Amino acid sequence: MLDDQIGIDPGAVEEALRTLAGFGGYGESGVWRVAYSPEWLAAQEQVETWCSEAGLEVRRDAVGNVWGRFEGSEPGGVVATGSHIDSQTPGGWFDGALGVVSAFLAVKALAERYGQPRRTLEVVSLCEEEASRFHSAQFWGSRAITGEVRERDLSDVRDADGVTIGEAMAAVGLDPTRYREARRDDVDVFVELHIEQGPRLEEAGYSVGIVDGITGIRHYVIELGGRSDHAGARPMIGRRDPMPGVAEIVLGAIGNALAMGAPAVTTVGRMAVEPNIPAAVPDRVIFTVDARHPDPAQQERLFASHESMFARVAAERGLDLATRVVLDLPPAPCDPGLVETFEAAAAEQGVPTMRMHSGAAHDTQRMSKIARTVMVFVRSKDGRSHTPDEFTSTRDAVDGIRVLAAGLRRLAY
Amino acid sequence: MLDDQIGIDPGAVEEALRTLAGFGGYGESGVWRVAYSPEWLAAQEQVETWCSEAGLEVRRDAVGNVWGRFEGSEPGGVVATGSHIDSQTPGGWFDGALGVVSAFLAVKALAERYGQPRRTLEVVSLCEEEASRFHSAQFWGSRAITGEVRERDLSDVRDADGVTIGEAMAAVGLDPTRYREARRDDVDVFVELHIEQGPRLEEAGYSVGIVDGITGIRHYVIELGGRSDHAGARPMIGRRDPMPGVAEIVLGAIGNALAMGAPAVTTVGRMAVEPNIPAAVPDRVIFTVDARHPDPAQQERLFASHESMFARVAAERGLDLATRVVLDLPPAPCDPGLVETFEAAAAEQGVPTMRMHSGAAHDTQRMSKIARTVMVFVRSKDGRSHTPDEFTSTRDAVDGIRVLAAGLRRLAY
Repeated sequence: MLDDQIGIDPGAVEEALRTLAGFGGYGESGVWRVAYSPEWLAAQEQVETWCSEAGLEVRRDAVGNVWGRFEGSEPGGVVATGSHIDSQTPGGWFDGALGVVSAFLAVKALAERYGQPRRTLEVVSLCEEEASRFHSAQFWGSRAITGEVRERDLSDVRDADGVTIGEAMAAVGLDPTRYREARRDDVDVFVELHIEQGPRLEEAGYSVGIVDGITGIRHYVIELGGRSDHAGARPMIGRRDPMPGVAEIVLGAIGNALAMGAPAVTTVGRMAVEPNIPAAVPDRVIFTVDARHPDPAQQERLFASHESMFARVAAERGLDLATRVVLDLPPAPCDPGLVETFEAAAAEQGVPTMRMHSGAAHDTQRMSKIARTVMVFVRSKDGRSHTPDEFTSTRDAVDGIRVLAAGLRRLAY
Repeated sequence: MLDDQIGIDPGAVEEALRTLAGFGGYGESGVWRVAYSPEWLAAQEQVETWCSEAGLEVRRDAVGNVWGRFEGSEPGGVVATGSHIDSQTPGGWFDGALGVVSAFLAVKALAERYGQPRRTLEVVSLCEEEASRFHSAQFWGSRAITGEVRERDLSDVRDADGVTIGEAMAAVGLDPTRYREARRDDVDVFVELHIEQGPRLEEAGYSVGIVDGITGIRHYVIELGGRSDHAGARPMIGRRDPMPGVAEIVLGAIGNALAMGAPAVTTVGRMAVEPNIPAAVPDRVIFTVDARHPDPAQQERLFASHESMFARVAAERGLDLATRVVLDLPPAPCDPGLVETFEAAAAEQGVPTMRMHSGAAHDTQRMSKIARTVMVFVRSKDGRSHTPDEFTSTRDAVDGIRVLAAGLRRLAY
């Protein structure tokens, strides 16, 4: 075990983030870089250039993930680290990009200081995580690596203009029919550094968190139907107005999460009213309920309380209820040994850390199907993300990268 | 006073409604006939033909209302009757159209049986009531008659494609700059027959109602702002989520109307969520509250209870509240003498009636600025309107037309 301190140049972190933000720059502090766009391609090419310059063996896989490989001296599974290169529309400079930059800078620092590792190290810049262009892509890049892409996804997954993800891949020079070649079965460890996207590190006064699990997520699409009526000619008594039913479900779902207490969360983020006319009682309202809990048993309790409440409200109000589950990601616990390894690495670097779960979904969730995983979270200012206002200080980023590098050193050297 | 029974041919009612429904027909039982469209023009030309054939003096005024005049033998204000020719998108066969057909058939029946009236009778087919094409038209036809159209409305009032109402008028051969010529100051009485659009006549077992007043209506547009956050990374505590505030206001507003009791009504019919993403706490929600009461004092109580509730919910939840009143129509009482005249006319014809208010807005509301008014309501099946499903039986329509004709006879002969 090498116990000396790892130095990361703050200027290099800032310059790399600024360079990436130049591809799809949006205003002063935003980016708009969706998968398979020209700016996305330019950003991936930049990552390739960086990796080449650092002496890594570079390749772009069949779906466009970029890998930089530093071959180990001994056999054994790969230790990989990275995050995603695509952004929200618009997003900020840090979500995804910081993990790519950190992976590269950490491996570069290790290579420069310690030379060849025992275990092969790889840096990866994943092609699609946000689903900001392809809403049903569901972690396209990591899903291809874990072998979960299905052939029909190439034509079924479309952007808002109707372009299929296969067509979009072809437009940046990839052969979509070769997607199976992106699959990996030789990755032993996957580590992702990411901004927290929430306020917990800031509130607790830590720059870095070690993630012991990723929340389970269920998205319900709920349709509550009644009967449209004239807003003036139909008295209150006798209406089959879905709107107060929706209101009761909103308060009920949020109330269930509050009653269960943290880390349960529930959000109603999308709503469509039909016919959406001020002077008409709605015919139906379609809305989403996003419910999350990192603990499998507690998650089931949360979902059950939601589902019985949906049914009760609809029955009591005589409304038609249709509930669809459109996303159902089980909780993905991180590897306890890796959590301890990274906590020890952080302690060795003098970086105090907090152990925490991730309330957001990440590529790591997919990667946990084929590898042991862990995540390193870095403090987000005001807990903001998915906006040009998201911010992480260079000082905090450097803390995170030092923890990442020190953990990788423990695993690969 | 002539006390004999007035006969109306059911076949003529059905044929006239079917003929009108052919202009802009939509499916089996619907119409889609917005103001100043080709089908609207054809319908107005049909009304002109009918009036000419009945010996009425026909003219189309400056904004496209069609008038058919039967000159009286004595001087004095005009006794006018009619309704609107435009429809919802789609609407049914009866809303507006039944009032136009009834006006024509009633005056025709009186002319055939009793010849020239003492007082001048006019039939009117108003050009625009539904605001289904021009959302801010606010009773364009009757507003032109009462002198409430402003010059800037010609360019400010636009349809969804950006066409101004002035351009639309020009497209059907009207000179929009002459809108002032539509003004009338010689109308003494305006009577409108209309479908009820609600369930009260049906529930009480009457075919016809005599309307003693039209409800006051206020439309609020409410913007409730919080802070968008990641649906997973931001714990429940610390969110500034506008959605539960919206839910509380929906339940509060509907609860206020229920607590006050009929005829108070309140409806939340339109809602827009921003950014409207399932996995994001909304930044803000914009929605409408439509509140109505026919009694001026009670209306003020209802509005005050709504407004204090909006403020309380926003304050308690730390949300930003912006409230705009975008429509504010005061209650329009009908003329008590006319109400009694039409009740007596109905009794004379052996048609039992119910005295009631209108919960819907009507051109009559505008016409009350320049004339004494009353309305005759005809039973709606299941209280439906603004849909191809709206239905009024021919038998009920004939009852209404007989009451209309008998009332006009009392006023004009």
